[in-house]
Amino acid sequence: MKMTRLVGERFREKPSDCVIDSHALMVRGGYIKAVGNGIYAQATPLRRITRKIEEIIRQEMDTIGGQEVLLPVVLPESLWEESGRAASVGSELLRFRDRHGSPHLLGMTHEEAAVQLVREYGSSYLRYPFMIYQIQTKFRDEARPRGGLIRVREFTMKDAYSFHTSLEDLQEYYQQCYRAYERIFARVGLPQVIAIAADTGMMGGSLSHEFMLPTPVGEDTLVLCPECGYKANMEAAEHVAEPAVESAVVSVVDTAAPACAASHPLIQTGSPELALVHTPGMRSIEEVCAFLGLQEAQSCKAVVYQTETDGRLVVLFIRGDLEVNETKLTNLLGCDVKPAVLEEGCGLQVGFIGPVGLELGQGNTIIFDRSLQGASGLCCGGNLPDHHYTGLDMERDCAGAEFHDLAKAREGGICPSCHQPALTLSRGIEVGNIFQLGDKYTRAMGMLAANQSGGLEPPVMGCYGIGIGRLAASVCEIYRDEHGPIWPMSIAPWQVHLCCVRADDEDVRACADGLYQELQRLGIEVLYDDRSVSAGVIFSDADLLGIPVRMIASPRNLQSGCCELVTRDKRISKKVSIADTAQAAADLVKRLLDELMRIPSNNTIRTTGGACIPVSGGESSVKGWNIARTRQ
Amino acid sequence: MKMTRLVGERFREKPSDCVIDSHALMVRGGYIKAVGNGIYAQATPLRRITRKIEEIIRQEMDTIGGQEVLLPVVLPESLWEESGRAASVGSELLRFRDRHGSPHLLGMTHEEAAVQLVREYGSSYLRYPFMIYQIQTKFRDEARPRGGLIRVREFTMKDAYSFHTSLEDLQEYYQQCYRAYERIFARVGLPQVIAIAADTGMMGGSLSHEFMLPTPVGEDTLVLCPECGYKANMEAAEHVAEPAVESAVVSVVDTAAPACAASHPLIQTGSPELALVHTPGMRSIEEVCAFLGLQEAQSCKAVVYQTETDGRLVVLFIRGDLEVNETKLTNLLGCDVKPAVLEEGCGLQVGFIGPVGLELGQGNTIIFDRSLQGASGLCCGGNLPDHHYTGLDMERDCAGAEFHDLAKAREGGICPSCHQPALTLSRGIEVGNIFQLGDKYTRAMGMLAANQSGGLEPPVMGCYGIGIGRLAASVCEIYRDEHGPIWPMSIAPWQVHLCCVRADDEDVRACADGLYQELQRLGIEVLYDDRSVSAGVIFSDADLLGIPVRMIASPRNLQSGCCELVTRDKRISKKVSIADTAQAAADLVKRLLDELMRIPSNNTIRTTGGACIPVSGGESSVKGWNIARTRQ
Repeated sequence: MKMTRLVGERFREKPSDCVIDSHALMVRGGYIKAVGNGIYAQATPLRRITRKIEEIIRQEMDTIGGQEVLLPVVLPESLWEESGRAASVGSELLRFRDRHGSPHLLGMTHEEAAVQLVREYGSSYLRYPFMIYQIQTKFRDEARPRGGLIRVREFTMKDAYSFHTSLEDLQEYYQQCYRAYERIFARVGLPQVIAIAADTGMMGGSLSHEFMLPTPVGEDTLVLCPECGYKANMEAAEHVAEPAVESAVVSVVDTAAPACAASHPLIQTGSPELALVHTPGMRSIEEVCAFLGLQEAQSCKAVVYQTETDGRLVVLFIRGDLEVNETKLTNLLGCDVKPAVLEEGCGLQVGFIGPVGLELGQGNTIIFDRSLQGASGLCCGGNLPDHHYTGLDMERDCAGAEFHDLAKAREGGICPSCHQPALTLSRGIEVGNIFQLGDKYTRAMGMLAANQSGGLEPPVMGCYGIGIGRLAASVCEIYRDEHGPIWPMSIAPWQVHLCCVRADDEDVRACADGLYQELQRLGIEVLYDDRSVSAGVIFSDADLLGIPVRMIASPRNLQSGCCELVTRDKRISKKVSIADTAQAAADLVKRLLDELMRIPSNNTIRTTGGACIPVSGGESSVKGWNIARTRQ
Repeated sequence: MKMTRLVGERFREKPSDCVIDSHALMVRGGYIKAVGNGIYAQATPLRRITRKIEEIIRQEMDTIGGQEVLLPVVLPESLWEESGRAASVGSELLRFRDRHGSPHLLGMTHEEAAVQLVREYGSSYLRYPFMIYQIQTKFRDEARPRGGLIRVREFTMKDAYSFHTSLEDLQEYYQQCYRAYERIFARVGLPQVIAIAADTGMMGGSLSHEFMLPTPVGEDTLVLCPECGYKANMEAAEHVAEPAVESAVVSVVDTAAPACAASHPLIQTGSPELALVHTPGMRSIEEVCAFLGLQEAQSCKAVVYQTETDGRLVVLFIRGDLEVNETKLTNLLGCDVKPAVLEEGCGLQVGFIGPVGLELGQGNTIIFDRSLQGASGLCCGGNLPDHHYTGLDMERDCAGAEFHDLAKAREGGICPSCHQPALTLSRGIEVGNIFQLGDKYTRAMGMLAANQSGGLEPPVMGCYGIGIGRLAASVCEIYRDEHGPIWPMSIAPWQVHLCCVRADDEDVRACADGLYQELQRLGIEVLYDDRSVSAGVIFSDADLLGIPVRMIASPRNLQSGCCELVTRDKRISKKVSIADTAQAAADLVKRLLDELMRIPSNNTIRTTGGACIPVSGGESSVKGWNIARTRQ
């Protein structure tokens, strides 16, 4: 390919609407063009990159027995009704009606379609296990697309679905797929991707891992333990509370303050009794604790939510110094929640809500975070205007409360695996995910396999996703300098960028033309810049295209009978005699490709551990909801 | 790949809902599964076929300088508003709103998105010509999908868009693309595809060709002239009327019939005068002509339409023996039409409408087919209940009428190219199309290229489509027997089908296992049926999978130290010693592949000719409409 024919514009100015660097570079380099909000066209350089990524993925999926299929983008809504997701998934699922008024949707994931394809085939255990995969367009109506290809609405995804007659078989295959993912990420140039335990979210199932590329621009928070190697997504990370605060010495810090000194009763040191305290206008944990001379960890905080669907109230009590992990709350309840909008007459004293004697109407819920379990000497709302309790003892005053893990992990928090206070938080981009789905979809959709004794059971499934465009953008985010991307050889749009400096010089031109022929003869993918433009333009364009090996023909090089061969990352720079240049470039290409095929395996797969949500299908979400309701 | 692992079911029974054979075979062979109306999942055998077709297309597109891109499936409606197609395309365009209420659509073709991608790049003539293409999912909300993959709603398409600074350059490139299409169809096994002049339809533009696979199950009617090679789609075929009927001898055939004999005035032989005749209750051409003793070609028939958008009337007069080509009518008017629903008081005497003295309200239209030009001695409606005129002379009685070609071509009709009465009609499947779009899209969307003198002009475009799934189904329709498809080697899901008859026999099994290893070592794509099932099941499954070369290991063959090598089409059948079998199969695969690379070039490209609609962009449609309206 000659640069004079390459469709696409490159420019120097950073686009104003690009927040992250890879996005800006991919716009500036003519890789992508926005067509709508979160909808992009891929220009030729990116399409060449994504096709190479797709091919690497295909090879690794085929290696673990995958069979490629193609499922539809547009699905009848009735298919998602079979699984129950037509109702349970929110507005990120794009629904519409066709010309006959029949409801359809744009697939954002294809569990239902996969089950539909193999439902009859999988009628006997003899045909198991098997895995089908596709590389196909998906649409997810994100409320806030951002970061270029990092979070889009339309995207190309490799999604794979495996089917098994036992959980053990699924777990074994899951590990095979885990290894295949390690190979895929290493081959595209990202061996640093780590697998972390993740929340199963709307997919359901019992265990999942996200493959995370650590980078400060990532949208996800990773909870890592450098002591023992524990890794989890914030959404899934178990929170282990520090030992409960001992019955604290409670004293009024600022007894000199007339307003409070005058109004609150004397609190005796070490007193175990529940006592109502006048706390006029003090609605926040900070105010109350400061007033009462308590640490925030010595308080019981109320956080009030409403269910998205029917607006029922959920009052969650948690230790005052912790934050609620809303994903865990959603999983427990089995439905989405939002911060409650409390109106007068709702029965709650906003700012003064506490667990003692709290009465909620039918259908509403009170739940407790595990951080409160066994705690005593706490302050909490008094369920009266301007009053709090002190001396709350959970066991004594909230007998029968059930506690759930609903708090967010914190920097320096206790690792749920090794129990050291060593947790660190960092950021990452999710470049892949794998799920053990269990029988959620097969059971709901009536897929049954005859077992050896003739009985019929729904098979269990795993699913395995990688977003192609996001992966390309992630590579760009990691491998770049201020001038442009530095593509790994395995996915580079071309392998060699042949730069003819002074293409108007007949001899230089002839030399470059010859090299172009020679490189093509050697089977090298070469982009040939044969334009009569300044060296500055040639090299700034070359930087933006990020081709890993650059070959420079110029008058000066020609004088010394050689060409320059430099890598985009500056690791290698040498002069080679013209006669040997093409072969040297080909050797270099091969060497760089080989480097990427050396697959490390640093990650330890964690199939169990504190970060796993002990959920099978949607069942225990429902169970959680029932537990909570029982308390009313 | 072993058959025991191949996901998909095969069965003998013809599905009841399959009208054409290729559809039934692709369902029976486990190639496709319906997910919704006109929406199919591709199982592994078909996905392997479509990937091979895609690769052949990529190679040929790259050969003519194409650059692969990827445009979105979901497009903002605003993009189609720029071209005007948001309003002009009907309900086959699936429109919907996203979560924010913003109107979007599913792309059924991507001219707008292509222009949007290159609008800035194409700012200088120096960058022309260029061509971009993609292989991508499209959705067209067909009212009546049918024939399996022949007419679907969701489909994968290769669509290419070329950009040029002159019509001459477009025409030259158009021919290159035409040749590339010939190579593509030949390479997938369909050298019999013919290119015919076509209607440009909703695409607009000045010239287009459809690549048609002749087959009785085709949906399109081809108008062919065996004398001179003229080829056109019925929608686009020019109609040449036989010489106008001479002033005919008019006589009342059935003077004995009391009702008419008594009521109609005497018509003099050879009389040139217009005469009103009483024709009680005779509303059809057949009735009137029989009554008046005229041939249908001696009548002037009225056909009444209404515009789809605003219901205005269009009264079309055409010679009584001809049928209206509604595509031509739509093109002339520049809007869709439907048969009129006439109510009382509309001013028209249904069954008795004629051109003499016909008055229509403002905004309605009267138009004439060219078959009436210069005709005389015709009968026509009298615009009075139960009356017709005889002796109609178009020149005398309809002075000032303008005539347009609005009739359908007929079997035995006059060829518009060689003027012999030699036309034949046959059926075909459209497997590809190419369009000279002109500047319809670039002009509407404000794409401008600076020319050599610095002036700005919209470039001209060509577009070039091939439906991948339909092409696969078309190959199946042509190459099959009653037992299954017979895939050409170039697109076969696997190259060799290794059948192990009596896999329970240890020696046979060992022999087949060895051959499987050997074939894989030789780089052959082999499907190995290692199941312990009857020979009948093995061969009927092999027939349904249609793999071109079959290798049979069996106890009998083993006894004679050989294997059987047979082609699916029965052309070749031989026994080869076991030691030589794998190599012989590899040689046969190569030979069959080579056969498909011999590209014939029988087709003569017709860039001009009678079948071309002389339309540039939407302009002369508007012009046609204006002409017609002027007559009111």
